[in-house]
Amino acid sequence: MADRRLLLLSNSRDPEGRYLQHCRDALAAHLAGVRDVAFVPYAGVGIAWDDYTAKVRDALAPLGVQVRGVHAGDDPAAAVRAADAIAVGGGNTFHLLATLQRTGVLDAVRERALAGVPYVGWSAGSVVACPTLGTTNDMPIVQPPQGFSALGLVRFQINAHFTDAHPPGFQGETRRERLAEYLVANAHARVVGLPEGDWLDVRGARITLRGAHPAVLFRAGAEAEELRPDAELGAVLEG
Amino acid sequence: MADRRLLLLSNSRDPEGRYLQHCRDALAAHLAGVRDVAFVPYAGVGIAWDDYTAKVRDALAPLGVQVRGVHAGDDPAAAVRAADAIAVGGGNTFHLLATLQRTGVLDAVRERALAGVPYVGWSAGSVVACPTLGTTNDMPIVQPPQGFSALGLVRFQINAHFTDAHPPGFQGETRRERLAEYLVANAHARVVGLPEGDWLDVRGARITLRGAHPAVLFRAGAEAEELRPDAELGAVLEG
Repeated sequence: MADRRLLLLSNSRDPEGRYLQHCRDALAAHLAGVRDVAFVPYAGVGIAWDDYTAKVRDALAPLGVQVRGVHAGDDPAAAVRAADAIAVGGGNTFHLLATLQRTGVLDAVRERALAGVPYVGWSAGSVVACPTLGTTNDMPIVQPPQGFSALGLVRFQINAHFTDAHPPGFQGETRRERLAEYLVANAHARVVGLPEGDWLDVRGARITLRGAHPAVLFRAGAEAEELRPDAELGAVLEG
Repeated sequence: MADRRLLLLSNSRDPEGRYLQHCRDALAAHLAGVRDVAFVPYAGVGIAWDDYTAKVRDALAPLGVQVRGVHAGDDPAAAVRAADAIAVGGGNTFHLLATLQRTGVLDAVRERALAGVPYVGWSAGSVVACPTLGTTNDMPIVQPPQGFSALGLVRFQINAHFTDAHPPGFQGETRRERLAEYLVANAHARVVGLPEGDWLDVRGARITLRGAHPAVLFRAGAEAEELRPDAELGAVLEG
């Protein structure tokens, strides 16, 4: 993992609804020198992948990069291998992982990202960078044919859209309760609750939290720990 | 499915927090003549299964039934087969289904419930009565070794704790959006959004919604349809 360069965003929109704008400067730095971005739209359900790709193309146009949907050609894995950078969008994590597995794109993305090709993910695209999809908030609308194992570009789990809020009177579990249950079943995992607006910038062994809000680190048998923006987290997350 | 007798509750507590009390009369009618209830605590994560069983035993004590946790003995499937009724509690649906599969209790419960042994489920225990766990709200904290297929005691899917509410400003999907995505990926499914306080009473081909609130039926390519309490739903859900 020494060469990896990952930008793992909790979410795609700022509070005003603008798409991929809150992280604009980080994206520009991350994709500096990049010409061709392979975009993976597989998390999109109920949106045409062409439309999803066009939305991302528009958002990244000011950076001077070309965005191509990997679904557009006959060989999506080859499209990944030919690109200078990889972007994986949000949506349903189960649908994303199932399609990554079925198309062989999973292996191509892993191989390239571990070789140092810049990777950008948001929401489901960040969760799928983790060892498994076990900390997704999404509904299991399809079954990934090869199971829950994901890209494994980092050694910890991300919970995207992290929040403690829940509707008044609701009897379902809070997010903290859900993650506590995850840690009962996965005692050695580390889980980052990544609030909206934040992202993790991963360069080799260095991992930095960016954004306005503290994140929360959950580990079995330990108090939840606040992670401050701009802190260097490599040791605490993967050490 | 001609002999099935199922009580499928959205949730376990009334707004005052009392456990299995809102459905007390329905439970009494459902378990009339029953002496031994096999309780399946496998959805419980972070609660000892003995404690979970004791909680259910206390709640059902006024009905004059004996509640035994299927985990207590050496042969949980045999415990299911020896009982007059089966109760499956809430918690994490993935943990429940994974443990049902691993222990062989899944087949025993299916066999007995389809033979007419009364079945009571709440929350995860209701979802697992469906064809798959695909409409759970829970986090996929463990991977069911045999996949997402569940008991299949009914032909439709249940979304428990159904609500349209979500925290202000939250960018994650609403419940309706999640279920719409489920239907994109599962075009032939019917999904009942079952609000807290409600349950389905299933006797053979007859299915009746009980409780104070309308439920919502979701089907691909159709408007969401309100289901009224006390309506007979067999034809609309399984016809």
